[in-house]
Amino acid sequence: MKEPTSDWSPNGLVVWTTDFGLENGFVGTMRGVVLDRAPGARHVDLTHAVPPQAIEVAALELRHALPYFPAGSLHVVVVDPGVGTERGVLCGVAHGQCVLGPDNGLLPLALPSDAAFFRMDPQRFALPQVSATFHGRDVFAPLAAALVNGSQRLQDAAPLPDPVRLKTPDPEPLHAEGRRGWRLRVLLVDRFGNLITNAERETLDAWGPEAWVQVGVERIAVQKTYAQAPPGATLALLNSWGHLEIAVRDGSASQRFGLGRGATLELWQQV
Amino acid sequence: MKEPTSDWSPNGLVVWTTDFGLENGFVGTMRGVVLDRAPGARHVDLTHAVPPQAIEVAALELRHALPYFPAGSLHVVVVDPGVGTERGVLCGVAHGQCVLGPDNGLLPLALPSDAAFFRMDPQRFALPQVSATFHGRDVFAPLAAALVNGSQRLQDAAPLPDPVRLKTPDPEPLHAEGRRGWRLRVLLVDRFGNLITNAERETLDAWGPEAWVQVGVERIAVQKTYAQAPPGATLALLNSWGHLEIAVRDGSASQRFGLGRGATLELWQQV
Amino acid sequence: MKEPTSDWSPNGLVVWTTDFGLENGFVGTMRGVVLDRAPGARHVDLTHAVPPQAIEVAALELRHALPYFPAGSLHVVVVDPGVGTERGVLCGVAHGQCVLGPDNGLLPLALPSDAAFFRMDPQRFALPQVSATFHGRDVFAPLAAALVNGSQRLQDAAPLPDPVRLKTPDPEPLHAEGRRGWRLRVLLVDRFGNLITNAERETLDAWGPEAWVQVGVERIAVQKTYAQAPPGATLALLNSWGHLEIAVRDGSASQRFGLGRGATLELWQQV
Repeated sequence: MKEPTSDWSPNGLVVWTTDFGLENGFVGTMRGVVLDRAPGARHVDLTHAVPPQAIEVAALELRHALPYFPAGSLHVVVVDPGVGTERGVLCGVAHGQCVLGPDNGLLPLALPSDAAFFRMDPQRFALPQVSATFHGRDVFAPLAAALVNGSQRLQDAAPLPDPVRLKTPDPEPLHAEGRRGWRLRVLLVDRFGNLITNAERETLDAWGPEAWVQVGVERIAVQKTYAQAPPGATLALLNSWGHLEIAVRDGSASQRFGLGRGATLELWQQV
Repeated sequence: MKEPTSDWSPNGLVVWTTDFGLENGFVGTMRGVVLDRAPGARHVDLTHAVPPQAIEVAALELRHALPYFPAGSLHVVVVDPGVGTERGVLCGVAHGQCVLGPDNGLLPLALPSDAAFFRMDPQRFALPQVSATFHGRDVFAPLAAALVNGSQRLQDAAPLPDPVRLKTPDPEPLHAEGRRGWRLRVLLVDRFGNLITNAERETLDAWGPEAWVQVGVERIAVQKTYAQAPPGATLALLNSWGHLEIAVRDGSASQRFGLGRGATLELWQQV
Repeated sequence: MKEPTSDWSPNGLVVWTTDFGLENGFVGTMRGVVLDRAPGARHVDLTHAVPPQAIEVAALELRHALPYFPAGSLHVVVVDPGVGTERGVLCGVAHGQCVLGPDNGLLPLALPSDAAFFRMDPQRFALPQVSATFHGRDVFAPLAAALVNGSQRLQDAAPLPDPVRLKTPDPEPLHAEGRRGWRLRVLLVDRFGNLITNAERETLDAWGPEAWVQVGVERIAVQKTYAQAPPGATLALLNSWGHLEIAVRDGSASQRFGLGRGATLELWQQV
């Protein structure tokens, strides 16, 4: 087993993923705290629209975005149902990038299996008054600033061999004569009403016309692009994350089927 | 006819207009791709709330924003119903700025008539794996980075004399005794519920008390400012884009009249 | 009484608070205007989701965010029901920062009582064509650029001793035998459906188990953290702004009680 690498040095970029929304000044205030301590920091938002406390959704967004950011980036992920309790704070290193967040299972879910984790001291850089409800501002933002401006070096942090881990349900095998199936779960509904499921490229050996998604009585063929389906038609396709997604051409699959996050679907393949 | 100008050099600013929303990490991921290849790029969002696949709305937003940005800016506009198909990619140059987008009619609609267009190679800078559904990340973002960091120069691109063109409907003349009229279309409902129409300053010779908008039985006078109408009153005025807009003082015209994008109204003028 | 201080010099940061939303290109266009005149300016959004024309909400957001931003920041606050009228424009200086906005009571509500105010000339830097409806773009953005690039110095502006002032209602005392009470108002519903009230830390001498909030027949105990309440339970707590807030653990208090901005509640304390 290789030594966990603490090999990360900041490029000044701070990338945010939270469930704080943009309806209030929470996100802007965190940027203020960072800029007060690390004036050269530059900010990017991954998204602040993670459904409240939906750790798995945040992990999914982060997992699929991380490989596209430059080495040296610092991601700050605050989806934190345990805010105000004694839950720990950690950094994970992968893809040459560092991810800072609460020790609640989010990071191990988002990072590749060879990621290295480090324990952070939530108090050392915290604001003088730490509120019970907004550690994004009082704990994570000043710690992010310390990581960006070099006051906190990963090399000086203790490895954390056993971060909290969550399990996301894999597709469940289903059995029927002459075909193989899986019960899928909808992980996320995107802006277009597409239903993004937990089936990934590797779920099937081959994604072709012999595979379909069953929603109630409707049998939905797997396609390559949205444009292959006529306007208004339903289709299933591997999306840009490599997840199977149910879409309606120029419409909303979520509305058509009345399905949302957590709903189940069936994927079948002729054998 | 003057030679199309390729006279643009990047100032490092990347301005985004998409229908991707901020509910997911799509926009942040595109920024990551750009920053990975053009670390000095600075990002501004025009809007990501273009209704899904509403090319005309994106064109309208861009047309009215473009003159306010500094020369050298690069606009990236991704409203792209043809994603995953063989549709082309182009740049348009106007106001000393460059606009990158799909060849689907959006750019000619947004840019002034003397804009110059250039064909872009969608593959040259694309990511190693191009998904069928997210060219914003896989094609447009790396191409934007190449334009900003100088790897792709407009001077080296072939002029595109015949980009795809769409027509937006002009106001339609209506006839009645003693007055002139036009049938208008609602192009956009803004955040305040204002109904923004396709009548522009030049539709009428004079915008005064002899002009009014008819919505069902209600006759709405044209005013100069919101504040001229008492709270709760309906008014029509030329908005900051120079388009005729129907508004309710301290309220929503869209809600009051139950009208949205695509609805029709009548504009009349005593003669 | 000390001389109002004009002691502010720009650090290049422009922090925006508006009711313009992100649904349209309004905010991006204002950034364009600033960047055209002050190319080095860096932008942060506090929020653009202030309810339309809700001066008090904008003041509340700004008041609680301001102390977290670095000295030298310029805040631009455009919630401006009087747009298009002759209302004035002013700057306020506090916390080493400058706040620019319309003279409609917002700034005095947001800034500490020792803030200094300066009258700004709305025309000097305005765009050549000033629309009647979008002073954010035509008046405030170019003035912000002038403040950031040094064309407009606060030292050269006349002090404004009497800006327009608004009063926000304090908690109203209620009387009953053996206890003291206050009628509170909901100032804001945040993204999580939490009801943020006008009771602040100093409303009670002690926030303990002898205090509770009464909503209809439900008596809600004051807690320290969200996590102290079981999932689904209602709790009251001092939030990260130091305001009393009603929350539902893993749910929405606004939905549970059917209450929104402007609703009233009662706070009681055993004596």
